[in-house]
Amino acid sequence: MSGKRVGLNTVKLMSLPSIIASSSVGGKMEAAGPLSESFDYLSGDSYFGAKCWEGAESAMLKKCFEQALAKANMEKDALHYMLSGDLLNQCVASAFALKDSGVPFFGLFGACSTMAESLSLAAMLIDGGFADFTCALTSSHFCSAERQFRLPLSYGSQRTPSAQWTATAAGALILSSAGDGPYVSHITTGSIVDGGINDEANMGCAMAPAALETLCTHFDDTNRSPDYYDLIVTGDLGHIGHEILIDLAAKEGFDLEKNCQDCGMLLYDRNKQDVHAGGSGCGCSASVLAGHLLPKFKSGEIKKLLFAATGALMSPTTSLQGENVLGICHAVSIEAESPF
Amino acid sequence: MSGKRVGLNTVKLMSLPSIIASSSVGGKMEAAGPLSESFDYLSGDSYFGAKCWEGAESAMLKKCFEQALAKANMEKDALHYMLSGDLLNQCVASAFALKDSGVPFFGLFGACSTMAESLSLAAMLIDGGFADFTCALTSSHFCSAERQFRLPLSYGSQRTPSAQWTATAAGALILSSAGDGPYVSHITTGSIVDGGINDEANMGCAMAPAALETLCTHFDDTNRSPDYYDLIVTGDLGHIGHEILIDLAAKEGFDLEKNCQDCGMLLYDRNKQDVHAGGSGCGCSASVLAGHLLPKFKSGEIKKLLFAATGALMSPTTSLQGENVLGICHAVSIEAESPF
Repeated sequence: MSGKRVGLNTVKLMSLPSIIASSSVGGKMEAAGPLSESFDYLSGDSYFGAKCWEGAESAMLKKCFEQALAKANMEKDALHYMLSGDLLNQCVASAFALKDSGVPFFGLFGACSTMAESLSLAAMLIDGGFADFTCALTSSHFCSAERQFRLPLSYGSQRTPSAQWTATAAGALILSSAGDGPYVSHITTGSIVDGGINDEANMGCAMAPAALETLCTHFDDTNRSPDYYDLIVTGDLGHIGHEILIDLAAKEGFDLEKNCQDCGMLLYDRNKQDVHAGGSGCGCSASVLAGHLLPKFKSGEIKKLLFAATGALMSPTTSLQGENVLGICHAVSIEAESPF
Repeated sequence: MSGKRVGLNTVKLMSLPSIIASSSVGGKMEAAGPLSESFDYLSGDSYFGAKCWEGAESAMLKKCFEQALAKANMEKDALHYMLSGDLLNQCVASAFALKDSGVPFFGLFGACSTMAESLSLAAMLIDGGFADFTCALTSSHFCSAERQFRLPLSYGSQRTPSAQWTATAAGALILSSAGDGPYVSHITTGSIVDGGINDEANMGCAMAPAALETLCTHFDDTNRSPDYYDLIVTGDLGHIGHEILIDLAAKEGFDLEKNCQDCGMLLYDRNKQDVHAGGSGCGCSASVLAGHLLPKFKSGEIKKLLFAATGALMSPTTSLQGENVLGICHAVSIEAESPF
């Protein structure tokens, strides 16, 4: 058994890959929300200079990638790998955003858990000795998602109260084998969880059991309790899924009341914005992590963060066929100082 | 710079992760083809016991996974990671196939290059010290792909001569940190290549430039010439893409005439089967590698194999929007003995 493995499903990264730069981009709705100030760029419209929603999402992700490189003060040629995925069929937002980069590319699909998946693999590629610099990124776009997963925007269809609002946002992280942190110290990789929910308008409920399983596994594996962390942030359970997680965790003996938040609750102000159960989409947790949370390491406000992005694995086809909405959650421990 | 890096985009895996078992499953068309004998299981119909094409693809992939485990004589609990993806929107074939496994899951999207992507990451997770056992797998299904990417099957639409036939097939590999080989020795990860082709009925042509770039990079990085290998196998360029690759490679000074084949040409007999330009789909190169090629290591027929699966990154939406069909290719060097 490798010395990097801790408990059942967790690995520790003794070389401590460092997140040396992060960038986030958002749209109009995000500009009107409480985290507005945290974005590196906010588009005045939803098009980002493109002519269609899918092109807009690619343009947004490309801008985010270029900004992350600029903030790291490096050229794309220095990157050994980039890892990206998104919600669009065949992950085309990522492919077209990154087609001119020339950087070796691993395409991922983890639905809204993609930021945690790409960060996990980007950090492991460094810790495993395969790369000096990697980039983990992802995006989502309200308009491209809405018409693909639900109905054409122009129908103006009503959304149910349990529905979440797909963020028009992207996040990108540059990781390095050397740097002053924050560091990726532990990674707990989730398995697929079928919670028995088949209501695709209640994703938070469907994903909460996956978040529970991964968080409990992480605490067991690392012998840490939730209060080890300054903040545990899930994404994107939204208001309903978050409540369910807190309840389920209490039954397992873990108190998440104090220091657990959800990216889907942080990105919008639901009292002022019509987002129903909160934000969702790969870009939600990605932009909250990149723009809002990681800078708090510099200010010293956060020293230990558990980032646990959640994803709903389904398609409109499987939902029409009556299949359940499957959940997955990956947890990444990000720390200001070495815990080893 | 890490000692694992070789040249521009290649890494060497000094610990030599071993492919300890492989399994392949196919459908009716595959049963009628020249590699029929190489499959572990062939379905008499295209349903694999399910009620819809998407469910059939999941059932097929699940069967392939379980067979690989049985051939490795191990329980799924021993797997530290599984990596899978497919062509279906939101990669639901993989998600529903593996939802009951309980194994930590990384979802991938690499279109028809998925087997090379999952094999690359599965081998790197072992070589990096994160896992003792991993599983790399993928699938495609003619019927689920046809109705999603083209037209409902019952339309009986005519296909163009340059079109390829999406294989109804799956392949799964079990990798181990210990074993007698064959070993994964080098991995060259491709970047996205835009060859300027926007005809989605000519994927081979669109992917050939990506195959060229990755193969040339691999030869440059490793200081190997094509004749180092007993076989270089691309997948799935088909007959048209293969010819283009041979021509393009010759212009770059690499002679691929002698020992380069393509999985899309191997899986079917185009003189007897109506597959036009050959096979395609994630399951094509996956099943040819798992069922036809890897057993040749045991018989000694192959000692050095370069597996270079290719993928076309596009969606029906991007094609309707006039975007090009992007290509990607990852190359994995598989060897019977240590080259180090």
